[in-house]
Amino acid sequence: MEVFKENRERLYNSSLKGFAFLQSGPSGERYNTDRDLAFRQESNFFWLTGVVEPDCNAFVDFEKKKTTLFVPKLPSEYAVWLGKIETLESIQKKYEIDAIYYNTEIGKFIEDNKITEVHVMKTLNFKPVAEIEKLVKKNEDLEYTIGELRVYKTDKEIELLRIASDNGSFGHIEAMKAVKPGKYEYQVQGKLLESYYSKGGQHTSFEAIIVAGKDSSTLHYIFNDKLIKDGDLVLIDAGTEHRCYASDITRTIPANGKYSDDQKMIYSIVLDAQKTCIEMLKPGVDFIDVHTTAVKTILKGLLKIGLVKGDFDELMEHHICSLFMPHGLGHSMGLDVHDCNGYPRGVERIKNPTYQYLRFHRKLEKGVVITIEPGCYFIDALLEPAIANPEVNKYLNLEMLARFRNFGGIRIEDDLVITETGYENLTKVPKEIDEIEKLLAQNN
Amino acid sequence: MEVFKENRERLYNSSLKGFAFLQSGPSGERYNTDRDLAFRQESNFFWLTGVVEPDCNAFVDFEKKKTTLFVPKLPSEYAVWLGKIETLESIQKKYEIDAIYYNTEIGKFIEDNKITEVHVMKTLNFKPVAEIEKLVKKNEDLEYTIGELRVYKTDKEIELLRIASDNGSFGHIEAMKAVKPGKYEYQVQGKLLESYYSKGGQHTSFEAIIVAGKDSSTLHYIFNDKLIKDGDLVLIDAGTEHRCYASDITRTIPANGKYSDDQKMIYSIVLDAQKTCIEMLKPGVDFIDVHTTAVKTILKGLLKIGLVKGDFDELMEHHICSLFMPHGLGHSMGLDVHDCNGYPRGVERIKNPTYQYLRFHRKLEKGVVITIEPGCYFIDALLEPAIANPEVNKYLNLEMLARFRNFGGIRIEDDLVITETGYENLTKVPKEIDEIEKLLAQNN
Repeated sequence: MEVFKENRERLYNSSLKGFAFLQSGPSGERYNTDRDLAFRQESNFFWLTGVVEPDCNAFVDFEKKKTTLFVPKLPSEYAVWLGKIETLESIQKKYEIDAIYYNTEIGKFIEDNKITEVHVMKTLNFKPVAEIEKLVKKNEDLEYTIGELRVYKTDKEIELLRIASDNGSFGHIEAMKAVKPGKYEYQVQGKLLESYYSKGGQHTSFEAIIVAGKDSSTLHYIFNDKLIKDGDLVLIDAGTEHRCYASDITRTIPANGKYSDDQKMIYSIVLDAQKTCIEMLKPGVDFIDVHTTAVKTILKGLLKIGLVKGDFDELMEHHICSLFMPHGLGHSMGLDVHDCNGYPRGVERIKNPTYQYLRFHRKLEKGVVITIEPGCYFIDALLEPAIANPEVNKYLNLEMLARFRNFGGIRIEDDLVITETGYENLTKVPKEIDEIEKLLAQNN
Repeated sequence: MEVFKENRERLYNSSLKGFAFLQSGPSGERYNTDRDLAFRQESNFFWLTGVVEPDCNAFVDFEKKKTTLFVPKLPSEYAVWLGKIETLESIQKKYEIDAIYYNTEIGKFIEDNKITEVHVMKTLNFKPVAEIEKLVKKNEDLEYTIGELRVYKTDKEIELLRIASDNGSFGHIEAMKAVKPGKYEYQVQGKLLESYYSKGGQHTSFEAIIVAGKDSSTLHYIFNDKLIKDGDLVLIDAGTEHRCYASDITRTIPANGKYSDDQKMIYSIVLDAQKTCIEMLKPGVDFIDVHTTAVKTILKGLLKIGLVKGDFDELMEHHICSLFMPHGLGHSMGLDVHDCNGYPRGVERIKNPTYQYLRFHRKLEKGVVITIEPGCYFIDALLEPAIANPEVNKYLNLEMLARFRNFGGIRIEDDLVITETGYENLTKVPKEIDEIEKLLAQNN
């Protein structure tokens, strides 16, 4: 609870005045049935309160620096279905919150505190509350302000992220060890989930991507239902949560335990880019420069192996690398795997193929947590028009490229915390070719 | 696809006239983030079409006996993220549907077919469609009509349910084998999920209940986060899906591999009730009579061991059994684990403690799929007021009951299909005491 107390202190010290009103996530069922959905708290509400139950509300009083929690009053007969119903006192004690009432007391609270206007979240209003609807609602600043605080993690938050990454790393290694030709992608996913659950991780930070063969060039593959074949690359992009804090790891491994020469060639380029970028990380560095370094390193690698050709600067100018890495280098990570406020107010996305998908454009500072995940893919939807376009295909070695059309893609992703002097890598999963091959030697 | 063709034929032959409009489930993200939620199709839409993608729509033409599917047109640049975008032709072929258009053609379809009024689902309208809003909407019959058809499963649907139960049985046995003192409930859940995924089951039919010790008397325990201790009962209530068709199985096992004498005593009563009820299943039997048999069997058992006392009929009249089994005997199961239309129009729930929670009150017929899940629990929220009430406590052996206050609860649940002459038990998990103890002997 110390984590959330510190978060609240930081919010009290923001520029906001008066009162703010926040809602927890709502409980929910699958469509019109009574099949409950697994509840995961909304991240901003969790950041503020640490509360894990649905259907709660909270008022923040910026003047008195106090937060008041409102919880649903459950009918006593629910005890048969849900177990002993907690008292207000026990909930208040659990969350070390300043004051607590039932949701039915929201109107009285507004009256007692003579509240006439209130900051509300811009995009997060789940169950309209009549008493709040009557107030003047200010929805421009609260979500952005909390978002700005969430960009910089406290040491206590980093400790939770460290555990999430430890558990994620464990699961990733177990999943890698479960890969072999003849298994289905979903079987690897099952092993991953079992490993996460074995550490208490009952929520993933996102739906795992387990993708073999040519489809490994599909960035957000969602099916995980294909047979893994000899010779396939298998890309595993997955993460678990620890108390809602995320991890996010990608490794790309050979299904049969040995990278082919072509696989080694591309893998080495991506790994070189990843390690070069990681070495750049420290306070004061603009993340867009790290992204540019990734792009340049991959482009140089592709030039060196002869897959692209021409003058380096001309290739950069024509965004040739974006044919092979059509995404940003990484993203902020915290309570959400793609964390909030990647761009501060006033900074717009750069609308060209090299930069348009970059999710984070800020100067790095202590407490920023970022993923570094360069990739190199052979994607039909990008290569087909490129090959057909004489303005682009002159930079491509078409003969060599033909050999790679079923290659798939490679991505390598670690999670990093910016420290006072540099970085800490939270991800503890082998990524060198020899380390991975050694690990996979146990698989058969 | 034959499954859904047959479902559509059955709907065409219902009493509905004109046109019906149905929506698939919508795609969704976690709160205001870009973390996609795993998509699971809405059951009625799936029953009609077999379509597994979100954001689709369908028109049923009852006169022409034709169903037309409408799908979203994805921007071509999504191919980089999602893989090759399917053409209308490939989707139509995959689903063997009569006709297919993009969602943008809904207005034109209405015009071409001169549709002025339309049957819509009563509770399932996810994304309002302007063109539908302009029509006269009839929302009384479509959902109920499909629901009535869904109560009776075709042979093809039963084949899918059989696979779901086979996979669910496999997972249950693996989970039982993973139980031992010193493990956490979530670790057993992880094993269960891994086993489901190993069979391709990427969705559970509901959030698994894995509960040890006294909490096994909490009917819908949701935490799964406790340490399993020596001497605990462990109740596992879980199910997987196969192509959206559910399974739902409960077993209650001793953490240390051997039931204690008290555990054997209660277990035997519940098992006797379960087997007695199963033997009753055949067309023509009213399910409420099966429920009554469960109640009577458990009450007789409790009388026999001396936990309750008094005249049997008087105990029945005072609903004493509902203190120990405060839920219905079972529920219909199909595309939803608690399937639709448990009560036909005109049949109301009976509002007394013995019957109020019964989810299914119909005559059994061929094709009905039902769970049989009697239980016996020691629930503080029920026992405390009962013990304090002289009108009730005179039927209880208070001294003996004191011994059971931390016992928890036992439930045993199988899935059954009503056949022409009786039933088929889809669940293949040991439930006899000696079978379970033999299985668990491998655990340590």
